[in-house]
Amino acid sequence: MTSIDGLASIFPQQRFVRDAAFQAAFESDGLTAFRAKPLAVVIPESNEEVIAAVRWCHDHGVPFVARGSGTSLSGGSLPVADGIVIALNRLNRIIDLDPHERIAVVEPGVVNQHVSNAAGPHGLYYAPDPSSQSICTIGGNVAFNSGGAHCLKYGMTSNHVIGCKAVLATGEVVTFGGRSVESVGPDFTGLFVGSEGLFGVALEITLRLLPKPEMFHTVLVGYDSLQAAGDAVSAVIDSGLLPGALEIMDALSIEAAEAAVACGYPPGAAAVLIVELEGPREKIAYERERLDQLLVQTNPFAQRVAVDEADRLSIWKGRKSAFSAVGRLSPDFLVQDGVVPRKRLGEALVRIQQLSQQAGIRVANVFHAGDGNLHPLIMFDGKQEGALHRAEELAAKLLRLCIEMGGSITGEHGVGMEKRDFLPEMFDAPTVELMDRLRRAFDPKLIANPGKMFPGKEAPALSSVGLHPLEKAGVISRE
Amino acid sequence: MTSIDGLASIFPQQRFVRDAAFQAAFESDGLTAFRAKPLAVVIPESNEEVIAAVRWCHDHGVPFVARGSGTSLSGGSLPVADGIVIALNRLNRIIDLDPHERIAVVEPGVVNQHVSNAAGPHGLYYAPDPSSQSICTIGGNVAFNSGGAHCLKYGMTSNHVIGCKAVLATGEVVTFGGRSVESVGPDFTGLFVGSEGLFGVALEITLRLLPKPEMFHTVLVGYDSLQAAGDAVSAVIDSGLLPGALEIMDALSIEAAEAAVACGYPPGAAAVLIVELEGPREKIAYERERLDQLLVQTNPFAQRVAVDEADRLSIWKGRKSAFSAVGRLSPDFLVQDGVVPRKRLGEALVRIQQLSQQAGIRVANVFHAGDGNLHPLIMFDGKQEGALHRAEELAAKLLRLCIEMGGSITGEHGVGMEKRDFLPEMFDAPTVELMDRLRRAFDPKLIANPGKMFPGKEAPALSSVGLHPLEKAGVISRE
Repeated sequence: MTSIDGLASIFPQQRFVRDAAFQAAFESDGLTAFRAKPLAVVIPESNEEVIAAVRWCHDHGVPFVARGSGTSLSGGSLPVADGIVIALNRLNRIIDLDPHERIAVVEPGVVNQHVSNAAGPHGLYYAPDPSSQSICTIGGNVAFNSGGAHCLKYGMTSNHVIGCKAVLATGEVVTFGGRSVESVGPDFTGLFVGSEGLFGVALEITLRLLPKPEMFHTVLVGYDSLQAAGDAVSAVIDSGLLPGALEIMDALSIEAAEAAVACGYPPGAAAVLIVELEGPREKIAYERERLDQLLVQTNPFAQRVAVDEADRLSIWKGRKSAFSAVGRLSPDFLVQDGVVPRKRLGEALVRIQQLSQQAGIRVANVFHAGDGNLHPLIMFDGKQEGALHRAEELAAKLLRLCIEMGGSITGEHGVGMEKRDFLPEMFDAPTVELMDRLRRAFDPKLIANPGKMFPGKEAPALSSVGLHPLEKAGVISRE
Repeated sequence: MTSIDGLASIFPQQRFVRDAAFQAAFESDGLTAFRAKPLAVVIPESNEEVIAAVRWCHDHGVPFVARGSGTSLSGGSLPVADGIVIALNRLNRIIDLDPHERIAVVEPGVVNQHVSNAAGPHGLYYAPDPSSQSICTIGGNVAFNSGGAHCLKYGMTSNHVIGCKAVLATGEVVTFGGRSVESVGPDFTGLFVGSEGLFGVALEITLRLLPKPEMFHTVLVGYDSLQAAGDAVSAVIDSGLLPGALEIMDALSIEAAEAAVACGYPPGAAAVLIVELEGPREKIAYERERLDQLLVQTNPFAQRVAVDEADRLSIWKGRKSAFSAVGRLSPDFLVQDGVVPRKRLGEALVRIQQLSQQAGIRVANVFHAGDGNLHPLIMFDGKQEGALHRAEELAAKLLRLCIEMGGSITGEHGVGMEKRDFLPEMFDAPTVELMDRLRRAFDPKLIANPGKMFPGKEAPALSSVGLHPLEKAGVISRE
């Protein structure tokens, strides 16, 4: 253990942590079913310390995982057993915010919501809005190309990151993109976004900011069936309207949200649809008329229009709390993140219901309907023998269903540890082989977040499932 | 020369061309100052033939350049001397067009404009609009991440390509992305887009289609000075309006366009600004009011609003013909493609004027002002001893100015052969080193379009500058 002294010497004692109690907070992430014990946690406060830590890992062939708030739902920020965790939360400065160029340059530990908070006084905001935006960090958003309810209109994280300075797993420091959307050659920035920590660590990230919409028009619509809600989504998209968000929740997730936050959704709904228009006042006045005409033909049995911002937020509260609310219905659950072609949404929902019934496992459904991104929540009790395993078997069937329907195994959570075995089912052998070659161009020693994204042999230990370890430790809390 | 028989055996005689007269049409591209003589031109009619040709090149270590209409302005589709040209123009099928999913799957030889033509009856169109869109092909657009006047609002080609099947330089066939914007892991599709033919050849490209704007509002504004036009651009952007296009032409390019197409721009203008709003009728009604209020404060001396579609096209005609029109003022010219931060546009224009005067070389300016993308047209007479060389020296100064101001050496034309020596000035050594490693992951033998993008030793022969060889041959014609 003399070798780790070199790493320790880079950091003051209190920012090089091997204390078991403290480390416990880093043993798991949003995929609470798994945990692994790192060798040490380092907490850099500057780019130079991150670079030095990565170079030490490279020189000594020690794996590392960079991590923000650890909200990954795919196990993407799980530590590697006997590797280093580089906790980036203290690299939380907004280095530059230029309202004229509409960009912000931020460190990786900046919380997503804080970018919009800082941009707000200039009439700007940062568009990608994961449900965890009040705690998740931009570094993590970059690693997993995170999405959110409003990505239907504005695209994923990769559509909003225009430049990136990063330290590669080799210790080299590179700079991609810049302050303009126009860049030279291949989209290296876009390659880095979504690389799940396998290429290196982002040090400075340049984000596009958008003008805040002048107004919102938010409608909550109740339906007798999931199918009817799905058909309404098709009708909206086919009309040429492009809402900021188009979300569906099924009966089970409504029940959970109602129990958790009393969101006041229409009682007895088999599904609710949230449609949110956003933009200049005159445009919304016109679009809401078209939307009204259209929705009336979809046979809703209840409809509620947000009358003010507070009302709007109360509609969103049910949706945004859905994941944690499901915890009230079931001690444990797995969140899936499959994508199906939008026009096959109704068909996919029927198949999911069948698979759920066959397995005798309850599945709640919450989804970004506009882009066909499903979030089935598979409920189980981790204390029951084999329950996690059965839940995972059902999850696998749902993923294969998405592949079979021409969709994807992940819309926004990433492959991570959770879905790594499905990568070769999603892509053919030459494509996976090329991905591996590209990865090795960044990380020849395979020390950056190994065991994620690509099929791997070593699986981390099963954890006592339940609360996120940072929640247990009181470090983070959710809305 | 026995070895080339293997390649010849893949193609019927008339599609394996070594005839000098025919080959002449392929010796050059839109950067007419250079030419190179290929070993042979092959004209595949199927994916299988492209794959077989690439595999033959890989097996025999023979370089190849894939090519559509050869409109590259950076010499990106120049042949490699004694290499193979793979002419993709016959791979021009629109394989699938799905109005519900709003996507088109096309072969690489499909002409840009033809995608919109096919999508038109469904109320859809393909947004990226290079000036050469009536002849350039989607394969070339993908290779160079092409832009156009309307990319201010809608982004470049990479924002509209969501999937790609390609044959790598190794002969492997890979598939990236798919029919949804949500994809797995790093943006491999985005990496391929803009790779300038150095990674392989696209075989099938999946494009996003957008709903056609309900209406346009196109304004032509005349100013006394370039500075005033530049300030107007800042005022528009700062107001929060996001026009579809925001273009400036200076006095010299106006003069050229006037002589060529009699576009009727305001006489005596030092600069004209074209602003085009687009969208639903009600939105435009509202936005044009804001735009009017705003423009009145920018001290224009003339203003013309397009009264109908014919009038709109006549305004655009001047802008779209500017490049070729400059040919009336000068026997030859080099088109540059630098980017500066939008807020430094005025400063950049003053510096370009100074550099032009110092060099005693006339420079016309046409640019996508909204995103800081300059197109200086450097005029010279190729028949004068050393004139091309002096023009290139001025071009180099303009590129260095863009780098120095925090911009980029290319906005949409690509690095190609023309700007390859500037890549190491734009990026630091570790970044270029990584780019090279990534390139070798696709093309370990360096046979795919070698000599482009990265600094290279071998330069092609200087050509008799002038008309595009395909124009000379009567194969293509421009608006």
